[in-house]
Amino acid sequence: MIHGGDVISYSDKYEGEIIDFSSNINPLGPPDSLKDAISAAYTELECYPDIKYRELKANVAAYLGCDQDQVILGNGAMEIINNVCLLFKRIVVFTPCFIEYIKRPKVLGKSVLKLPLAEGFSIDLEKLENSLQPRDLLILGNPNNPTGLRIPEPVLKAVYDLVISRGAFLLLDEAFFEFCPADYDSISLFKIQSNVCIVRAATKFFALPGLRLGYGFASTGFARKYTEIEMPWSVNAFANAAGRCIFKDKAYIERTKKYIDKERKYMLKSLSQVNWVKTFNSHANFILLKLLKYDEDIVFDKFIKQGFMIRKASTFDGLDKSYIRVAVKDHQSNQKLINLFQE
Amino acid sequence: MIHGGDVISYSDKYEGEIIDFSSNINPLGPPDSLKDAISAAYTELECYPDIKYRELKANVAAYLGCDQDQVILGNGAMEIINNVCLLFKRIVVFTPCFIEYIKRPKVLGKSVLKLPLAEGFSIDLEKLENSLQPRDLLILGNPNNPTGLRIPEPVLKAVYDLVISRGAFLLLDEAFFEFCPADYDSISLFKIQSNVCIVRAATKFFALPGLRLGYGFASTGFARKYTEIEMPWSVNAFANAAGRCIFKDKAYIERTKKYIDKERKYMLKSLSQVNWVKTFNSHANFILLKLLKYDEDIVFDKFIKQGFMIRKASTFDGLDKSYIRVAVKDHQSNQKLINLFQE
Repeated sequence: MIHGGDVISYSDKYEGEIIDFSSNINPLGPPDSLKDAISAAYTELECYPDIKYRELKANVAAYLGCDQDQVILGNGAMEIINNVCLLFKRIVVFTPCFIEYIKRPKVLGKSVLKLPLAEGFSIDLEKLENSLQPRDLLILGNPNNPTGLRIPEPVLKAVYDLVISRGAFLLLDEAFFEFCPADYDSISLFKIQSNVCIVRAATKFFALPGLRLGYGFASTGFARKYTEIEMPWSVNAFANAAGRCIFKDKAYIERTKKYIDKERKYMLKSLSQVNWVKTFNSHANFILLKLLKYDEDIVFDKFIKQGFMIRKASTFDGLDKSYIRVAVKDHQSNQKLINLFQE
Repeated sequence: MIHGGDVISYSDKYEGEIIDFSSNINPLGPPDSLKDAISAAYTELECYPDIKYRELKANVAAYLGCDQDQVILGNGAMEIINNVCLLFKRIVVFTPCFIEYIKRPKVLGKSVLKLPLAEGFSIDLEKLENSLQPRDLLILGNPNNPTGLRIPEPVLKAVYDLVISRGAFLLLDEAFFEFCPADYDSISLFKIQSNVCIVRAATKFFALPGLRLGYGFASTGFARKYTEIEMPWSVNAFANAAGRCIFKDKAYIERTKKYIDKERKYMLKSLSQVNWVKTFNSHANFILLKLLKYDEDIVFDKFIKQGFMIRKASTFDGLDKSYIRVAVKDHQSNQKLINLFQE
């Protein structure tokens, strides 16, 4: 199990419906406006999507606050990460991180340099300075998965300066961006810069993992390069149509932000009072826990038998069986999970 | 323009709706049964698709007549071709062929050996024998695009024998399989063999290019390898749902086969009477033409001004500006196109 969300594989462990705390999706579900857009898009199925995705790129650009020719797209954020990796020989990551930062490059025949995060899961600038080489691709989760931490703005600026001075390239994976406190917006920060690409997705925040819509920002020159190597028509007609409504639903976006902020605080506070786990701070809609008793297998089995699926974390490079990750879900589910932790 | 279907880019050339003869989609449109399946799948958007696609694989296996663990999937046939290329160092193709057989490997950093098709666009077994090396991936379109020709069964068997004796691997791209006369089924032929993979798709025959559902057959061992390197969740929730109905719609499948057979015959016959083109035989739902007067640009411009988009063929390796390709569409559109050819 290298990814969360595989409830089906455990459906025999519990009679009722398993509550999935292993994947990190907006508990409010997709925006209401989406349903009509999907119905309307049905007739578009029998045509190829616009190979240049002009309308979708315009919608994404308006949402991200960048130019249309700075928008890159993919079949989920994953495909964008995959495609960007294609353009580099060596990938540098800080562990623990999203497993695909390591797996995709390897599948693509690229070498991967893994640097450990420093104390408190922070970026070790000195290690980076000693390691980063020209034409390296540095991938950073912002917030990082599974740690849930945003990169502080001054650190990100220092990282970027180093990337530029080395002639390397920075890929920020911001698939969880909108869940985080509004500290800074990396796209505003890097809008007129080069050697940087910022990936976001409809998957997590708009609760649409089945839709497969990833999008991102890159400088015009890099976006052009990306377009040359991407697979044609990889964004499906429904994902294309979703771009017409989801980004405009400001009420939904605000409601989610507030909801997650409140629930994250509730869970962080409640979990910190559980004496058999150490709770790490998080800016995202998931929380990393260190198990002070038991290991991940015991906890996973205990919880699944009660109808809760948590995420074992030992598959993340740099973590062992004493870590698990839980999502921030709807209040009722969160309460139930907390109760279970307290038992 | 390396692909057909980009009508939007030419919408200023004609006032009405352009009839697209440049992409090769079933003119009858998607099966009626699909609409309900898509509506029903709406609620699945907020969950990750089953990462193992158990139900979809079972549906595909029943349709293809193979085992569930022999099924491979992708975001369109294109992604399957891309993923299979990842597992080899050198790709061998016969030109002219679908452009992505050459482009994807290059993007992936693989070398490509291009062999020219022999007289009548047939496979040159001698050339293949002189060139094929261990661990090569040979990609053949069956029927081939843009020529529209199926590989005769004895030739395919000879090719496969050579592939096996060399320790190479054969990828058959059968994205247009169902449009062709029922001569033989390569999946029955190779069902218990190894070193072969057969790709098909919902895109063309089920008229669903916007859905992005590619699927294929491979030996169990190769299918396992494929699963290890593919991107997680690349098939979206709607494509997943389509698998529940489209393959069972036998009436639709039969209706389309008959329709295309009749229209192909009509077009082949009519076009062969046009004195300024040479018409090549086709088993598929598209026809390659050699222009005996004018070049592709002149013909394209003439036709687009009348509201018809044809496919220039010089972007296919091995063809020059004296070739174009046209789709087999609904009878009324076909008639109009033929009239234009006769003018």
